[in-house]
Amino acid sequence: MNLLYSLDLLGTAAFAASGALAAIRRDMDIFGVMVLGLVTATGGGTLRDLLLGDTPPFIFKDETYLYLSLAVSLLVFLFHRNLGRFAHPLTFFDAVGLGTFVVIGTGKALDFHFGFIGSVMAGVMTATAGGMIRDMLSNRVPMVLQKEVYASACLAGGSLLTLLHHIGVPRTWSLLASAFTVIVLRLLAVRYNWSLPRARYGQAHH
Amino acid sequence: MNLLYSLDLLGTAAFAASGALAAIRRDMDIFGVMVLGLVTATGGGTLRDLLLGDTPPFIFKDETYLYLSLAVSLLVFLFHRNLGRFAHPLTFFDAVGLGTFVVIGTGKALDFHFGFIGSVMAGVMTATAGGMIRDMLSNRVPMVLQKEVYASACLAGGSLLTLLHHIGVPRTWSLLASAFTVIVLRLLAVRYNWSLPRARYGQAHH
Amino acid sequence: MNLLYSLDLLGTAAFAASGALAAIRRDMDIFGVMVLGLVTATGGGTLRDLLLGDTPPFIFKDETYLYLSLAVSLLVFLFHRNLGRFAHPLTFFDAVGLGTFVVIGTGKALDFHFGFIGSVMAGVMTATAGGMIRDMLSNRVPMVLQKEVYASACLAGGSLLTLLHHIGVPRTWSLLASAFTVIVLRLLAVRYNWSLPRARYGQAHH
Repeated sequence: MNLLYSLDLLGTAAFAASGALAAIRRDMDIFGVMVLGLVTATGGGTLRDLLLGDTPPFIFKDETYLYLSLAVSLLVFLFHRNLGRFAHPLTFFDAVGLGTFVVIGTGKALDFHFGFIGSVMAGVMTATAGGMIRDMLSNRVPMVLQKEVYASACLAGGSLLTLLHHIGVPRTWSLLASAFTVIVLRLLAVRYNWSLPRARYGQAHH
Repeated sequence: MNLLYSLDLLGTAAFAASGALAAIRRDMDIFGVMVLGLVTATGGGTLRDLLLGDTPPFIFKDETYLYLSLAVSLLVFLFHRNLGRFAHPLTFFDAVGLGTFVVIGTGKALDFHFGFIGSVMAGVMTATAGGMIRDMLSNRVPMVLQKEVYASACLAGGSLLTLLHHIGVPRTWSLLASAFTVIVLRLLAVRYNWSLPRARYGQAHH
Repeated sequence: MNLLYSLDLLGTAAFAASGALAAIRRDMDIFGVMVLGLVTATGGGTLRDLLLGDTPPFIFKDETYLYLSLAVSLLVFLFHRNLGRFAHPLTFFDAVGLGTFVVIGTGKALDFHFGFIGSVMAGVMTATAGGMIRDMLSNRVPMVLQKEVYASACLAGGSLLTLLHHIGVPRTWSLLASAFTVIVLRLLAVRYNWSLPRARYGQAHH
């Protein structure tokens, strides 16, 4: 599906930009910026393919993803001072990437006959594991585990796709509906500053 | 072997509880609690299966492990204030999990015709890698590398199983003897507060 | 090629020593020292084999790498106070390891028909991923992302080998030329304290 491939590349570029920016904030050199851009954009899908046993992972079968991630990271390295004006589009493209990555991951796991929860996990992992590796390489607790409703949007989209698959909805429609769900939930979460409940450990124990 | 499967699930639940508690202590949200519970309980076996080339890993073939880990993590998230009374049983179940994970990992590597040290490594990794990933996601140096005789018990059990395998002891007996060895060593280590030697870098260099 | 295998073992020993020393500096116990030595020496090649889909990874096919890494780590643990006099040879052996790891990784990826950038990545990863995992386990931002021209030497060597491969130079000559390039660049970088450009985030934003 050409639309899905285009959205996938758009999301890859947005994720690479976010990884490169994180590296710049951590005062990494140009190699670190390119590695973090690459890992953020392609780490989730690579881990998914390793777990599916589909090796070599997609990035080595279609090097477009590698060239795109590295080119975006380089551009961010060179022009990061002028990126302020792109903050709004970046948030939007990032949400598009999130939705696309979830449905690609979950869809692939369904094709590999994974169970319900395994398929949802594959989608969530495709969308979030790259950012987790980025944060681990930056010596930080992964943002997705602490601060944002990033993951819930992915869970909702992955679950919807798995459900639609099992009740027999044609793949094209279920992919579009699920990706759309993730994107809208994510943008609403950013807009209204939603957050997930936490256990308030400090409050209970001090 | 049904006993081994039951012990494996018991250990999975205990490891998930320890991961979920670590996430709560780090003030993660409910998604973080579920991810850390899941990773702690299933990360070691998943990494082992990746290294064995046995994909997809066990968790995607029998989703019981996933449902169990997520359910336990959710329960810990909801009731963590009341977990104090379970501290003793948890230590015991954790030791049972350690012993079971080691013998499952080493046994599987022996079935894949790994060498002596590779088989021992597979067992130790099955039992400890989940906790290492939990600590890396929590932005801490893995506890197992610094503080406890956690690993030695695993090394002893994995080596014993490999030895018994090569001298031809029937698998059932060697599994039980090795798992028992790990569990007893671990509980003694907790009871008597054993620790491994370290190089005293500070003392030597200041 | 026997020379390549000898250099590979030499590099493995040097990388294991650097990992073991990092663990000692972080006050880890003997298990931590052995794990960090092992991971630093063999982690890059293991990750490469996982991504190539060549499982089980090389360390389980030829356990020499495991025995050597563990033996060196143990020696470093026991005699680290006397290692000062080995600082110069260690830097040299480390550079040899870097060059050897790069050409083995890139060469293997070329044999698996990876594309240009995938093959270069496989070489760089073989040489640097072990150190990255070492630093993540030590709860630090990977050194290679921040401070040294470690990676550039690898990139140059991997690119040279891929280029020579595609223009048809016999493998033996291209391996030697590429490894030599990495080693010389690395030693020059240490000698003249070269470093890569960084984005000077602080300067721009404060």
